[in-house]
Amino acid sequence: MGYSIEDLKLLREKTGAGIVDCKNALKEAGGDIEKAVEILRRKGIKVAEKKAGRQTKEGIIESYIHTGAKIGVLIEVNCETDFVAKNEEFKEFAHDLAMQVAARAPSYISREEVPQEILEKEKEIIKEQFKDKPEHILEKIVNNKLNEFYKEKCLLEQPFIKDENKTIKDLLTEKIAKFGENIVIKRFVRYELGEEA
Amino acid sequence: MGYSIEDLKLLREKTGAGIVDCKNALKEAGGDIEKAVEILRRKGIKVAEKKAGRQTKEGIIESYIHTGAKIGVLIEVNCETDFVAKNEEFKEFAHDLAMQVAARAPSYISREEVPQEILEKEKEIIKEQFKDKPEHILEKIVNNKLNEFYKEKCLLEQPFIKDENKTIKDLLTEKIAKFGENIVIKRFVRYELGEEA
Repeated sequence: MGYSIEDLKLLREKTGAGIVDCKNALKEAGGDIEKAVEILRRKGIKVAEKKAGRQTKEGIIESYIHTGAKIGVLIEVNCETDFVAKNEEFKEFAHDLAMQVAARAPSYISREEVPQEILEKEKEIIKEQFKDKPEHILEKIVNNKLNEFYKEKCLLEQPFIKDENKTIKDLLTEKIAKFGENIVIKRFVRYELGEEA
Repeated sequence: MGYSIEDLKLLREKTGAGIVDCKNALKEAGGDIEKAVEILRRKGIKVAEKKAGRQTKEGIIESYIHTGAKIGVLIEVNCETDFVAKNEEFKEFAHDLAMQVAARAPSYISREEVPQEILEKEKEIIKEQFKDKPEHILEKIVNNKLNEFYKEKCLLEQPFIKDENKTIKDLLTEKIAKFGENIVIKRFVRYELGEEA
């Protein structure tokens, strides 16, 4: 087979993918688990794209209170069926998201949510900082700095705190592929003690 | 003494008041615990009034997720010292408040927070409903109906779900008296699955 039963078990746990998919991926990867994960994720993304746009009326509200109770988060994560909403791993996913928000304090879910006036202000500040650079370089700098801004402020673009090699968007895509349902992070709120309401 | 050691213990547990205050209250109440609570609460309210207005920079963020995870609440409750913030009973108080918000879905903390335009709209609706009544009666009806509105929509005016004989304001006053610190319910948010964000 080119891989062991343990490899197969590990890959299934790691990805949550079906047994046939895992066997094929391991065969294709020559027994290399990391490669097999890559192969599955590429497939997963395809699955996810098909699922996106489907109605998500079920889901859960989850919270996370950081040790010391000075930071707290409330989050709503939607899926298509109550069956998935009740799944332990779905709950863990929502909990991880709440922890992520507590730790990294995003302001938005996606870059599409950033208001135009905030974006314009950011661009202005960047241009001011690099005003000595020639125009064609400045444009690249602005784009790079804006991407950094998105990566900091938008939940979906942040590196996942439990595995910095993937973004929250990657994690979401994995879960969509795994559960075979569209999943949407609908809204969140983060309280920090003593900040202005 | 006119009361037993058990009565004294019970009263202290019930009110959290000091031993001397409890002894005096029991004596004054002739051993009637309910009366003694009343006496202490009247004193408590006095204490609370003195404490109100003092700065509250400490406190906790607490959450409550209702069974089934379709309703969730995040709340910030402030006090003066981290010592009180770390107290188990303070945490229970914050938890009770979060449960209250989950169950009774208030829109505001106090009646002072209700926006003028909402209030005007409410008055209009009430006047429309009772337009056949003479002017001097109509005024009373409007006041009564507005009080009902406050009692439904403002957390502090809602009857406490665990003891409908007191309002949340009463409960807050008790806690202020008990901890000897000003306590402020700063903000809350309530998510219900699938509602418009």
